[in-house]
Amino acid sequence: MNFKKVRLILFLLLSIPSYQVFSQEAKQKQKYVMVIHGGAGTILKSQMTPEKEKAYKAALALALETGFRRIKAGESSINAVEAAVRIMEDSPLFNAGKGAVFTNEGKNELDAAIMDGNTLMAGSVAGVTTIRNPVSAARAVMEKSEHVMMVGKGAEKFAGQAGLEIVDPKYFWTKDRWESLQKVKRQDSIKAMEGAGEKKSLKLGTENRDSKFGTVGAVALDKQGNLAAATSTGGMTNKKYGRVGDAPLIGIGTYANKLVGISCTGWGEFFIRNVVAHDVAALMEYKNKTVEEASSEVVMKKVPALGGDGGLIALDRDGNVAMPFNTAGMYRGTVTSDGKIEVFIYKE
Amino acid sequence: MNFKKVRLILFLLLSIPSYQVFSQEAKQKQKYVMVIHGGAGTILKSQMTPEKEKAYKAALALALETGFRRIKAGESSINAVEAAVRIMEDSPLFNAGKGAVFTNEGKNELDAAIMDGNTLMAGSVAGVTTIRNPVSAARAVMEKSEHVMMVGKGAEKFAGQAGLEIVDPKYFWTKDRWESLQKVKRQDSIKAMEGAGEKKSLKLGTENRDSKFGTVGAVALDKQGNLAAATSTGGMTNKKYGRVGDAPLIGIGTYANKLVGISCTGWGEFFIRNVVAHDVAALMEYKNKTVEEASSEVVMKKVPALGGDGGLIALDRDGNVAMPFNTAGMYRGTVTSDGKIEVFIYKE
Repeated sequence: MNFKKVRLILFLLLSIPSYQVFSQEAKQKQKYVMVIHGGAGTILKSQMTPEKEKAYKAALALALETGFRRIKAGESSINAVEAAVRIMEDSPLFNAGKGAVFTNEGKNELDAAIMDGNTLMAGSVAGVTTIRNPVSAARAVMEKSEHVMMVGKGAEKFAGQAGLEIVDPKYFWTKDRWESLQKVKRQDSIKAMEGAGEKKSLKLGTENRDSKFGTVGAVALDKQGNLAAATSTGGMTNKKYGRVGDAPLIGIGTYANKLVGISCTGWGEFFIRNVVAHDVAALMEYKNKTVEEASSEVVMKKVPALGGDGGLIALDRDGNVAMPFNTAGMYRGTVTSDGKIEVFIYKE
Repeated sequence: MNFKKVRLILFLLLSIPSYQVFSQEAKQKQKYVMVIHGGAGTILKSQMTPEKEKAYKAALALALETGFRRIKAGESSINAVEAAVRIMEDSPLFNAGKGAVFTNEGKNELDAAIMDGNTLMAGSVAGVTTIRNPVSAARAVMEKSEHVMMVGKGAEKFAGQAGLEIVDPKYFWTKDRWESLQKVKRQDSIKAMEGAGEKKSLKLGTENRDSKFGTVGAVALDKQGNLAAATSTGGMTNKKYGRVGDAPLIGIGTYANKLVGISCTGWGEFFIRNVVAHDVAALMEYKNKTVEEASSEVVMKKVPALGGDGGLIALDRDGNVAMPFNTAGMYRGTVTSDGKIEVFIYKE
């Protein structure tokens, strides 16, 4: 064996493992383990202060960090999404839990859902007013009852029996949201007067504007390869008549299976009519679309085709992420398996 | 031209149109314009009296006849499904409207949904106790509000403002259903005692048995080729905690698009977790399955795989119908474009 041959063999022996390590690292860097959103809507840089922007980014980063710690410790994706959503529910910045918008009657009515992609177990609550963390109530429905969805007083009674923290409805009051309600009420009454005589004014619902909605959500992929999704919201400012949006509806605002997890935010009515979350999953499973292609088709084409807007976050079993939205902005962020956190507000 | 040739030409001239008429007739006979169900469950011939069987068949036939008259007169499929479901809501035989089952608290809490396949407009109500015809309330939500789903007192207030008939909750009381509640309560308390110490007994929901559910629904195809679907239910006997099942959930218990309309009946929790109605539609649209294949795959494979049971009715835009169920029976019936009505209870 000559020197050249030895050198070649040595080179190969040394280079193969190092190449493998490098490629694994590259792959790991690309693999997302969690994605979150804090609502889509008319979020314009011109209307944002640097302090507010900083506060939102810090809250998103904290939610991601909290969820990521669970994933890193080997906990389930259900634990991770619940933990991340609780952080956003407890923050007054987002329209969920503390900081939820007000109904027409000046109440905070909260909705939430959670789903385990591995077992297809799911839980949801809607129209609750006394449960501090609705996402945890949704999880209790999933794990401690034989039901999937509970609404109103019944859901609150159940949550109390399940040992969840019950608060005075005043807990959810924030000055910002109260002022928004007064502003929207004024706008709606002006619009109603302007529209008098038109067919539209006969409608008994409220006018929907994207300044009125917002939702929080998370999707996670754990070390066992299982996906979970959760969503929580206060609904629409000035909502009437016990309106329920897409967030607490399994297959619509929240869905997870073995292939993908999805959480939506936007004009709920259009997300319901499009069965958005399940449609994304179906396009992936039945038409072999990527998570990016399927999410874009539904959010950028199907929802706008009916006149709706909003966005969603999706994470597939291979750690690929999609965060499409057709509004000006969407509070959102990701964390990869190596712990790298990124947060965004506007279109990049 | 000889006699034989003339005879042949005459024969051909005469036979072609008559053959066309015949084949059109044959085709028309196969085209279904409406399909309805009155609930799936443990319906055993051994437990049925001839009088009861006759009463169920007469009620189903009346609902089909009522819907068919609308279709024949050129009205929309939405009108037809609403009319058919109202007949079943008004009948004390079915678990919807009058004749609804009782909750644990001795109330009748009603859910309903309706969807227009052509426009993807949809409406639904859940947990209402004073609206005589919940399916009409769902339609009012669809047409007279900007929302899709309303629950509880808010939905009742809206229905009143929309001009729907409001009744005293006593209207829904029937002796049969009241006795069922007492029986189920006794069974549940025995089961709870027997199960004491087991993990299962920790669950705060009620035990689900197929004797406890039942739903009514209709899907129609109008002369313009538009599909619509509607579902209405009283939920589960002895239900607690404001439980909502699949019936009022768009894409789950009720769905229609330009391709197919679907209404489900069964153990709601499993239908939610499988996003049943939209899954049938997605299998047809994205995997080119027939209505029969798609319906069977979901009802006979996917729902039982999780441990659930029930059935569904589906009608596609070409007038093909599917009525799969994995229970002992399902009250159901069809009407074709020539007015031929057929009703069934057990497996054929």
